[in-house]
Amino acid sequence: MSDSLHTMMDYPLTLTALLERAGQYFADKEVVSRLPDGSMHRSNWGQIKDRALRMAECLLAAGLKKGDRVATLMWNHYAHLECYFGVPAAGGVLHPLNLRLHPDEIAWIANHAQDRFLIVDDVLLPVLQKFAAKVKFERIWVVKHPGPPSRHEYEDYEAWLKEATGQVPLPAIQENDGASMCYTSGTTGHPKGVLYSHRTQVLHSMAQAMADSCAVSQHDVALLAAPMFHANGWGLSYTAAMVGAKYVLPGPNLDAESLLDLIAREGVTVTCAVPTVWLAALAGMEKRGPDWRPPRDVRILCGGTAPPESLIRKLDHHGFHVIHSWGMTETSPQATVSLLRTKSLAWPEDQQYAVRSKQGWPLPLVEVRTCNEKGLAPWDGETMGELEVRGAWVAASYFNAPETRDRWTADGWFRTGDVATIDPDGCIKLVDRSKDLVKSGGEWISSVDLENMLMSHPAVREAGVVGVHHPKWQERPLAVVALKDGATATADELCAFLGTKFAKWQLPDGFVFVHDLPHTSTGKLLKTELRKKYAEWKWQT
Amino acid sequence: MSDSLHTMMDYPLTLTALLERAGQYFADKEVVSRLPDGSMHRSNWGQIKDRALRMAECLLAAGLKKGDRVATLMWNHYAHLECYFGVPAAGGVLHPLNLRLHPDEIAWIANHAQDRFLIVDDVLLPVLQKFAAKVKFERIWVVKHPGPPSRHEYEDYEAWLKEATGQVPLPAIQENDGASMCYTSGTTGHPKGVLYSHRTQVLHSMAQAMADSCAVSQHDVALLAAPMFHANGWGLSYTAAMVGAKYVLPGPNLDAESLLDLIAREGVTVTCAVPTVWLAALAGMEKRGPDWRPPRDVRILCGGTAPPESLIRKLDHHGFHVIHSWGMTETSPQATVSLLRTKSLAWPEDQQYAVRSKQGWPLPLVEVRTCNEKGLAPWDGETMGELEVRGAWVAASYFNAPETRDRWTADGWFRTGDVATIDPDGCIKLVDRSKDLVKSGGEWISSVDLENMLMSHPAVREAGVVGVHHPKWQERPLAVVALKDGATATADELCAFLGTKFAKWQLPDGFVFVHDLPHTSTGKLLKTELRKKYAEWKWQT
Repeated sequence: MSDSLHTMMDYPLTLTALLERAGQYFADKEVVSRLPDGSMHRSNWGQIKDRALRMAECLLAAGLKKGDRVATLMWNHYAHLECYFGVPAAGGVLHPLNLRLHPDEIAWIANHAQDRFLIVDDVLLPVLQKFAAKVKFERIWVVKHPGPPSRHEYEDYEAWLKEATGQVPLPAIQENDGASMCYTSGTTGHPKGVLYSHRTQVLHSMAQAMADSCAVSQHDVALLAAPMFHANGWGLSYTAAMVGAKYVLPGPNLDAESLLDLIAREGVTVTCAVPTVWLAALAGMEKRGPDWRPPRDVRILCGGTAPPESLIRKLDHHGFHVIHSWGMTETSPQATVSLLRTKSLAWPEDQQYAVRSKQGWPLPLVEVRTCNEKGLAPWDGETMGELEVRGAWVAASYFNAPETRDRWTADGWFRTGDVATIDPDGCIKLVDRSKDLVKSGGEWISSVDLENMLMSHPAVREAGVVGVHHPKWQERPLAVVALKDGATATADELCAFLGTKFAKWQLPDGFVFVHDLPHTSTGKLLKTELRKKYAEWKWQT
Repeated sequence: MSDSLHTMMDYPLTLTALLERAGQYFADKEVVSRLPDGSMHRSNWGQIKDRALRMAECLLAAGLKKGDRVATLMWNHYAHLECYFGVPAAGGVLHPLNLRLHPDEIAWIANHAQDRFLIVDDVLLPVLQKFAAKVKFERIWVVKHPGPPSRHEYEDYEAWLKEATGQVPLPAIQENDGASMCYTSGTTGHPKGVLYSHRTQVLHSMAQAMADSCAVSQHDVALLAAPMFHANGWGLSYTAAMVGAKYVLPGPNLDAESLLDLIAREGVTVTCAVPTVWLAALAGMEKRGPDWRPPRDVRILCGGTAPPESLIRKLDHHGFHVIHSWGMTETSPQATVSLLRTKSLAWPEDQQYAVRSKQGWPLPLVEVRTCNEKGLAPWDGETMGELEVRGAWVAASYFNAPETRDRWTADGWFRTGDVATIDPDGCIKLVDRSKDLVKSGGEWISSVDLENMLMSHPAVREAGVVGVHHPKWQERPLAVVALKDGATATADELCAFLGTKFAKWQLPDGFVFVHDLPHTSTGKLLKTELRKKYAEWKWQT
């Protein structure tokens, strides 16, 4: 008797099946884009499907072979969405380049990924020019947006799509075929690529659509406020297509006013982005009035870094409800969700917010554990360990980077580099990036906890805490603080404020006030920059 | 470059992963069973997990090899749930026998499936005795329930589970390993077996948990009111475990009073069963009062046969909301769902109920089409064709039954035997089983439409319509009607009632009033029986 004696169909999980469903059953559902010049572009899933399949045909005509990488250098809009489906439908691998990186780094990534073709926004041609000499794309297609014409020697995207006949059969896609890839910029070494398969993206979308996850539905209006070049665009494009949601893409316009305007105008009900975006949006809401709310309540899938509890509270007040989630480029990205459990529904508000500020529980088919030098860490909510993860949409390696093999354990779990505790009921709380923990006299201090407390102070807009070398304690925490416009606070005041919750030895030994903190291209606080800047900090004795 | 150049983990989709999750994160969530004697048994997912893994160990000790079938002859309760997970965790295939079939048929099925072992309820030993001589189970374990002890020569289930040490490693499960099987009794030929894999069951559960499907959540209290031996227990056991819902199993007690009592007592929020069960339950609700409602609103996954519109309406009034779904044993079983689409949310009530009475739209990763002698039928809501289906949890063949190959098309779609129309927006409406259509003078008449209209008449409890041979018209419809207790209606009255909606030539040419209509073991109207009984019907000329 064979091992596989089941009688079921061998039906591959492909992104093309999701696209076909959107085109067949939700053809009229709108796909709305705000273009770089601020004007609106309206399409729908029927058109996206047709044009994505045309693109697939054109890519095959251009000589694309299964697994070939096709790069994009684009903001979030309809044409990028067409690439999200058209490239995988042709058997290619979509590779959105992070346009916020240094040109040399973009070039390094494009070369490492061996990108064969490029599709680029006309408004981003100046970015391309800065690294074009260092890469060899066989062909480049330019998406023309409203605005003054740009001079270039490349091909026109619309003219290219018109070459499709609609008569050429597309290749059969297997679920383990590559579909898309993203690079993640570490603080050491080269960027590292994760190459997703059709299967992993379909499973990730099914998980995002579950009631206990983001519950994305055909009745939702979904807004992708995270860049499509970051962590696979958080998977939301594929989930929105699968369920037939109206889909809204903001282009480069992620400032508070543009975002709130778009949310109100299109009736957005679910969105996502890193906390930085929502910190700014919250300020925009408060400017509109203490009780301003959008026309419909909005769920926010929020991660990348942990949203401070104070942000979650204040957003709730304005009808924006954070679904706190943890994930990484390496986890497609959503791996956990921090929604209240049944028993917590009756808890007092403070206790509920405390839970929602943690990273929560893994989704089905994702497993987590924490390990430290003593082995597997117990679920006591106190013992710290490095968070390790495995599951149905978790990376098993980096693309062509055998030197990174040690990021996986011998038994196949991914070492996240995050340090976490796990509560007795399984709730994960990130304590810090392992490299961001402050090692003070043999004890660990969480820079994240200090930052979150500082950011709950009414005068503080943003805060970063880093460990700085100390002659006696090895490291001591230094707080770098940006105050809100017009607000004032002294180091002593902030220290006293922290002292209401932290032990004396955990308090920062120094405070620096700055106008702005440095951020990564994806909006995260850039701790390496802070560490570099204050490496020579002299502690007052 | 290899075809599979992705960098993702090879993480199998297994039922054991769902069980482990339930045990790890929802250990305290209750699993409540009503036992055959009516008494309550309380367990939880932690215990179910422990005991299922013990069972797996004991099965291995008994010599179970991967793919071996383990039969059950049981009602819905905790021990059957343990089998649902324990047998697949050992690498075996769970095979729940349909205890309502004729003993000869049960024996035929057990022999055809080559069942090696059997786990049986003590109260069902009398059923076993009727076919035990015709089958050879190597070992039989008996689940002892409260009540008078039964005399038998078999082993005791509890004593057997105690033999497990918890120290024996279980075999690695691959997602394409067989997990469970069910036989479907056709009206011609032998019963046919479908053998589900771990993968298909996990994907089916992910689909059931989606917001636009049944949205099963950890906050739900799920009641399985369909038998666990019917169509894989509708997949609800696996879905409930995956999300960590409280789970309620009614034993053999599916009468209206037991069901309503259980729903109220345990706070049920989601359930499933064929319309027959809900017709009886509705009568029970009406007896409790015109505005009686359960403590919490209840979603009902309802299929098997189409729930009449009048039933959906009346259940809504009592706080029970039908999620009309179509599926078969061959589709795991859920394949479609008939929830309102976004544009329908603003429709008048009548129009909404008309949609909810149809079978709806396929779930993601399921595809449907209708075909007739002219080929692919258009989506015009009128052209009838046989419904064909393919997808990620659809059968590709029957177990060891090469003679049934013609139930699949040359291009791999399953021919359902159902005749359907598809609306311009993709909504499926079943017209009839292909064999139940009345062929009258070259035209087709839907027996189902006539039955549903008859059942919306205030005096009618249930109605069946069959085609009976007619010398001139080939066939003409005959209506067999069971009236409600104390109600009266004449043939002329019912004919006039139907005449408000149907053309004259579609109206039944005869009416027979009976006390009860015959049903299949799964509660469906037994049309074969009606056809046999009235085969010699003489039309009045």
